[in-house]
Amino acid sequence: MKIELLPILVGGFGLLIALAIFALVSKMPAGSGKVKEIAAQIHDGAMVFMKREYILLFSFVAVLAIALYLGFQSWHTPFAFTLGALCSGIAGYFGMFSATKANVRTTVAANEQGAAQALSVAFYGGSIMGLTVAAMGLLGLGTLYLMFGGDPHTVESIHGFGMGASVVALFSRVGGGIFTKSADVGADLVGKVEAGIPEDDPRNPGVIADNVGDNVGDVAGMGSDIFESYCGSMIACIAIASTMSTTLFTQLADNRASLMFIPLALASSGLLCSVLGILFVKMFSSRKPDVALRFGTIGATLIFIVAAYGVTQFLGVDVDVWVCVLLGAVGGVLIGLVTEYYTGGKPVRDIAQGGETGPATVMIAGLAVGMESVVIPVITLASIIFGTSLILPEGAGVYGVGIAAVGMLATVGITMAIDAYGPIADNAGGIAEMAELGAETRAITDGLDEVGNTTAAIGKGFAIGAAGLAALAIIAAFIEVVSSEVPGFVLDIGDPKVLMGMFLGGIFPFIVSAMTMRAVGDAAFDMIKEIRRQFREIPGLMEGNAQPDSKKCIDISTKAALRRMVGPGALAVLAPVVVGFGLGAAPLGGMLGGALISCVLLALTMANAGGAWDNAKKYVEKGNFGGKGSDVHKAAVVGDTVGDPFKDTSGPAMNILINVMAIVSLVIAPLLAANPNGWFG
Amino acid sequence: MKIELLPILVGGFGLLIALAIFALVSKMPAGSGKVKEIAAQIHDGAMVFMKREYILLFSFVAVLAIALYLGFQSWHTPFAFTLGALCSGIAGYFGMFSATKANVRTTVAANEQGAAQALSVAFYGGSIMGLTVAAMGLLGLGTLYLMFGGDPHTVESIHGFGMGASVVALFSRVGGGIFTKSADVGADLVGKVEAGIPEDDPRNPGVIADNVGDNVGDVAGMGSDIFESYCGSMIACIAIASTMSTTLFTQLADNRASLMFIPLALASSGLLCSVLGILFVKMFSSRKPDVALRFGTIGATLIFIVAAYGVTQFLGVDVDVWVCVLLGAVGGVLIGLVTEYYTGGKPVRDIAQGGETGPATVMIAGLAVGMESVVIPVITLASIIFGTSLILPEGAGVYGVGIAAVGMLATVGITMAIDAYGPIADNAGGIAEMAELGAETRAITDGLDEVGNTTAAIGKGFAIGAAGLAALAIIAAFIEVVSSEVPGFVLDIGDPKVLMGMFLGGIFPFIVSAMTMRAVGDAAFDMIKEIRRQFREIPGLMEGNAQPDSKKCIDISTKAALRRMVGPGALAVLAPVVVGFGLGAAPLGGMLGGALISCVLLALTMANAGGAWDNAKKYVEKGNFGGKGSDVHKAAVVGDTVGDPFKDTSGPAMNILINVMAIVSLVIAPLLAANPNGWFG
Repeated sequence: MKIELLPILVGGFGLLIALAIFALVSKMPAGSGKVKEIAAQIHDGAMVFMKREYILLFSFVAVLAIALYLGFQSWHTPFAFTLGALCSGIAGYFGMFSATKANVRTTVAANEQGAAQALSVAFYGGSIMGLTVAAMGLLGLGTLYLMFGGDPHTVESIHGFGMGASVVALFSRVGGGIFTKSADVGADLVGKVEAGIPEDDPRNPGVIADNVGDNVGDVAGMGSDIFESYCGSMIACIAIASTMSTTLFTQLADNRASLMFIPLALASSGLLCSVLGILFVKMFSSRKPDVALRFGTIGATLIFIVAAYGVTQFLGVDVDVWVCVLLGAVGGVLIGLVTEYYTGGKPVRDIAQGGETGPATVMIAGLAVGMESVVIPVITLASIIFGTSLILPEGAGVYGVGIAAVGMLATVGITMAIDAYGPIADNAGGIAEMAELGAETRAITDGLDEVGNTTAAIGKGFAIGAAGLAALAIIAAFIEVVSSEVPGFVLDIGDPKVLMGMFLGGIFPFIVSAMTMRAVGDAAFDMIKEIRRQFREIPGLMEGNAQPDSKKCIDISTKAALRRMVGPGALAVLAPVVVGFGLGAAPLGGMLGGALISCVLLALTMANAGGAWDNAKKYVEKGNFGGKGSDVHKAAVVGDTVGDPFKDTSGPAMNILINVMAIVSLVIAPLLAANPNGWFG
Repeated sequence: MKIELLPILVGGFGLLIALAIFALVSKMPAGSGKVKEIAAQIHDGAMVFMKREYILLFSFVAVLAIALYLGFQSWHTPFAFTLGALCSGIAGYFGMFSATKANVRTTVAANEQGAAQALSVAFYGGSIMGLTVAAMGLLGLGTLYLMFGGDPHTVESIHGFGMGASVVALFSRVGGGIFTKSADVGADLVGKVEAGIPEDDPRNPGVIADNVGDNVGDVAGMGSDIFESYCGSMIACIAIASTMSTTLFTQLADNRASLMFIPLALASSGLLCSVLGILFVKMFSSRKPDVALRFGTIGATLIFIVAAYGVTQFLGVDVDVWVCVLLGAVGGVLIGLVTEYYTGGKPVRDIAQGGETGPATVMIAGLAVGMESVVIPVITLASIIFGTSLILPEGAGVYGVGIAAVGMLATVGITMAIDAYGPIADNAGGIAEMAELGAETRAITDGLDEVGNTTAAIGKGFAIGAAGLAALAIIAAFIEVVSSEVPGFVLDIGDPKVLMGMFLGGIFPFIVSAMTMRAVGDAAFDMIKEIRRQFREIPGLMEGNAQPDSKKCIDISTKAALRRMVGPGALAVLAPVVVGFGLGAAPLGGMLGGALISCVLLALTMANAGGAWDNAKKYVEKGNFGGKGSDVHKAAVVGDTVGDPFKDTSGPAMNILINVMAIVSLVIAPLLAANPNGWFG
């Protein structure tokens, strides 16, 4: 067998497992009466949004594919681009479709069969997402590698796959993030603060939209987010290895083909390890949920580290490359643990205490926590960069960074499963509440949800770290590609053009954050007005004798998401093109550097401040500092509300923004090399 | 006459004018009774804090001076360092001393002589600060230039002056910022929100501390902040010109000596233009305050642009250098105007409207405004960088950036005067309120204060832009100095060591922001508890029959400021030393690049979000969206409270942080050149 077939076979195997789990979940009892009805509303709302989102998104993809064809005068890059977009779209769609099946079945399991079975169902739902993401990545990239990987002239086309994945990811993440948070903020502010009714109360017209949002934002959006980092890191390694100078291979005692192929081989073994991890979780599902999930992730990571050693040995690759894998895998766990501390430990209690003096001190404390939380993750990233540069021969360090990113992301099947488990458990609780299934069921789903919040926070930290490394590797690949065709090309910080680029690059994360924050704020404002109107105008709604008009709220979120995702998406795709062709390759390189630093820092700050505020509110709700309904609680709710767009809209958009900018630059690098100084340079 | 004597003569002249204005202000009526008593409390509180702050600060300076002596084995650098610290300290002390004389005299003038005279007094007070800053800079640097400027081996010692100025600035800014905002936040939260008494109400125990804070933070802190940018930009030009390759001079049709001297000559003419600007304001003081102040700044800038042309011609410097001056001066005005828009225009009304749905939407809107506000200023900086690189011969662009920074800062005498005018007018209003001088007086001081808020916002935007350019020039100088001794030294973004440095550098602004935000939050928490205690335990306080214990509140702010300014200060000074000697010159260079981008972006975001929240609150207080006491107002107060440390503590610390890091790097550059790869590199 040709070894190059491995990723496709493993990808196919992963997809089969995902389908099998899907069949298993589908057969489980899906409830009846009110439970069924609410679940159907959520499912339908999500599907309607996805359809409208994908129509817009794939129109944009079609335009870009044509532009790429015109630019390259070849079908290779636009083909890879379209394939990447399709694979990402399929992974997101199928994952979310499954999630909206698994949520209600989790509720029913919690109601009828108890905690262990409920955990299994929710986790199965997440596993479908995790496995599909990994499988589609391997299938897509594996196919392209078979087609284009052998010839140095065609290998560049593979970059298009990453661009397709990234563009879909940006739209899904931003659109989904705006949808979910406008609904969440709107429903919470009127429901919890003004009307004084509980979260997920069926009387609240915004609650269905909020639950739809969990699926389109936290499942589909997150899935495409991780998908693009996963593929991006592999593509970066392939690109760097394909342009690396031959003397480096002698130093590494290696050959180009194996260095190009190893990221795919590592990811293949990672997918198999993820399947094992999923089995571990199932085996331990009768334990406490957090224990079971931890066994799954840590177990899979440990097995992967061992398996990766085998892979490097089997392919005859220098053991130093394996050390880079190890650095990445350990770094990912470390960043996750730091995230857990900042969104769950002492900092959270400090924020809650800040509530004693009102919302302003909650805000100040939370922002301080978010900013402080960047330190260790960024030092970890810097150490990985430094470590790989020490381990590998001079000049090959950036390849090591790419491999470290692959190492961090290889077990994406299980980490993503645990990530997607969170919103499923959250939805399950929402359905239980809305269908009034009673305290016992709600206690089980609350338990699952709480663990889901922690795992989601860890997953976010991990996703940012991985995305940062992946982007860095892609930027390095961009530099390699341009340098290989433009002799003497160097991105000197002392060069005013590079500096100018760095300043320009630094702007993007801020403007995109501002755009998305404002989109959420505006849509939430409309949502609040609509919910207030319904409470005012629908007779009997507050008393529970009338149905709210949930569709109107879903419509507000949908329209806001579709309208406001275009700006950030277009900006991210066009900026590298305009700067690259207009000002030249050096300003573009500087821009990527500036954007990278500022994206990673903002992403960590926003994600962790948001997570910490969320958990500070939960901490108060458990009865601390006066508990629910107290002034401290009101102050904590303000923090949580600001944290919502931080952690689920603007923050996650940062990861993808830098990856889109980097991969678009990498795709156009060969064209830039023809005129490296740009039209105005 | 030797032309090199010019800066000293002009500096001496500026100082004489400042002293003359001080004498004039001192002779004005200082009030009696309660007015006099309150003014004395503010003056004494400020002086006590300054004394304690300076003891701590100059102990640190002494330790650093010894370390520099040991490192360089020469008295030159430590001498320049100590001189820089002294000059900055004297400028801050004298400026603040004058401000605490001018505040009460402004109140008295408003009460007895009307608006025009009140404006004159407040502006005179600010002018003393502005002129002293410029004069001390020229006297100090002019002296060092005479001593060391002629010999390429000793010219490096001048860098020490910048380091001294920056270290003092960082401590003053951070310490002053913590002092003022802990008092302000504490006094406002208890007084306005809980007790429902007006701002500056004499019953509030925190009000005197708040007014002291305006002086130590906004006058002394701001003065030393601008002082270090002012000197830093000149030092960077001298450093770059002294190491520039000789072929560049032929291309520029110029010689090294004139390029080294021109920043001093420009700043000298700028000081003279500032004196003219001060006269303009006096001449137009019977007009509306904003018109008078605008005539002064714009007039001085225009005359300076013409004068700068004369200076370049007189010194026989290429006219392209003048174009760089022009770019800087115009860029500074542009950044100021953008700041004015974001802290006064539509964005402010949008934030206020966000209050209709509570504090969370005020926060979201304000953060979005802050983030969006970075775009045009950063594009302006990027354009200046790009412009200078187009105008000057290749390789000399960074010199142009330094000259642009000098051009932006040359009229610091008048811009700083207008800046310092703000807190003086604010204090005058506070004294009027506390002494219960009646509505008419208060209306005049309110009018002055309102203009002061706008000018302060513009001044802040300007200060950030100038500091960013100055830091950039210093970083460029660092690269030049290392390159001149280490052949082939280049800061390649593609080099993992540089990348690692960029990531590390990006952390500092975030950690320092977190430290300072938390310091304000913690101290405000203590302050709130103390004020609540006094309201509870001092019988008759709320009824106005008993005196509050203001000293206790001043003591809380003082202790917090002194304890919490050490960490950020030490971090900023030590980080470049540790990274430079430990990891090498390339990671240090990368670190400066990463820190620069992230400092400028955070500084703009925080300053403008803070200013916009402040003015949104004021907009509501004018009767919009329900006016004072409404729920919208309460929400707006939360925004303002979070904005306080943003705009007056953490934000301003960013400017100085990057300048400290850059100048320390420049000072140690000759030592690093001996071992450019560091101990662990």
